[in-house]
Order: sequence, then structure tokens, then C-alpha cells
Amino acid sequence: MPFRPPAADPATQERGAEFRPKFGPDGLITAVAVDAATNDILMLAHMNAEALSRSIETGIVHYYSRSRAALWKKGESSGQIQTIREIRVDCDQDAVVLLVDVGGDGGACHTGERSCFFRRVEGSAQLARVKH
Amino acid sequence: MPFRPPAADPATQERGAEFRPKFGPDGLITAVAVDAATNDILMLAHMNAEALSRSIETGIVHYYSRSRAALWKKGESSGQIQTIREIRVDCDQDAVVLLVDVGGDGGACHTGERSCFFRRVEGSAQLARVKH
Repeated sequence: MPFRPPAADPATQERGAEFRPKFGPDGLITAVAVDAATNDILMLAHMNAEALSRSIETGIVHYYSRSRAALWKKGESSGQIQTIREIRVDCDQDAVVLLVDVGGDGGACHTGERSCFFRRVEGSAQLARVKH
Repeated sequence: MPFRPPAADPATQERGAEFRPKFGPDGLITAVAVDAATNDILMLAHMNAEALSRSIETGIVHYYSRSRAALWKKGESSGQIQTIREIRVDCDQDAVVLLVDVGGDGGACHTGERSCFFRRVEGSAQLARVKH
């Protein structure tokens, strides 16, 4: 793995200047892609060390597909390539935010919607519905 | 559990009007809190069914703390209460985005930063550093 391990000391992990991504027991880190042009959240997915490493090295977002158990270069077939403007990491370094420019039709969701978060939750827990 | 189970049929899960949150094998769903005033991502955390249910019913964000293995009413001690304006769910319904108004000093991170994503990743994978 090309990354430094998480620091045992929380202060180093949370305030230090070293990137020490904390992959979960499943080997994954959570990634949130944000449209750099609009600041809208496009999608949430996961990365293993290889996907994160390739994303940093190439400037093109690679995820890890849990369903296919494989490296996933986003947009490879759809053209919705995500080009990285900036990667931000959170305090304990187990999640990243990717500010991206989107290729192709500008969308990110396989349903055809631009963002995967295209539905709003409404109502009480029992009756909750989602609305476009 | 007060929620409908995920639909076996992907079209129902992904395009339907019913809220069918898909909790992982660990019983959790991923939640991203966004500052409704600025559209900035504040934090990423997790919810179990109880936390999600309480969040919807009370309009105040509750997470599940994995480190403490307990329900976590965000801001209970810090005053950084997150009041929900809107909950959005993604296509396969395993992640939610929370548009929130933040109480107290308006921050969300225990480090004192407003957002947990206060560091930018720079450099190649081997040399990657984070910068405030």
C-alpha cells in the first residue's frame, strides 16, 4: 500500500500535515464527489488504496465497485469522467471529498439523473416517501 | 425497524417513491451533513435505523457513533445542533445527504474547525501531504 498508515496518536491523525488515509476493515474509504461548478453533491462511493492512489496519480477519479469487487474508473463507458480539482480529507481521514469537473453529459448517476441524490425524503419514518 | 426493507427489484429501489433505506451489514447508512446556508460539506458520519428514525421524527440530526457504539445526538454537549431542512437519498438508498442549519458556533468538527474537511490533499500518493 502506497500510503502511510493512520497515526496511533489522534492529534497527528487529525491535525497533522501527513496524509494517512484510514481504510475500514473492508479496506475502503468513503468518497463524496462534488460538482466543482455548482457545489452540488453528485454521488457517494468507495475507494480502496489502489483506487485512491490512481485517482491522485492520474487526476481522474477511480472508485472501487463493491458490487463488482473491482477497480472502477468512473465514466469509462458513460463518458462521465470525473476530473479532480481538489481532494479534501476529513479529521480522522476516513473520508474524502472530491471536487470534480464532470465529462460527457455532466451527470454522475446511472439512472440518468445528474446527481444520485435526486430524491427528497418526506413524512414520518413509518410513512416516509421520497419525492423527485 | 420502522422502515420498509430495500426492494429486491432495482427499479423500485432506485426510481420508486418509497423510502427504503439500505443499511449495510453493520446496520449503518452513510450520512453527509451539508450546511444549508453555504452548501459546504460539514461532516460525514453514520446512522443506524434508530438514528435515522429519530432524525426524521424530531428534525434534529442523530448519528450512530461507531467508536462509542451508541446513539449520538450531534451537538448535545457542544451546542452544534444540526436542524434538518431537507434529507435527500441516493439512487440505491444506502446514503443520505442532510441539509442542515447548525446551532452553537456554527461548526461541526470536534477539532474546532467548522467543517471536518478542512485539509486538502496534495502531491503524489507516496508523498501526499495535507494542507490546511
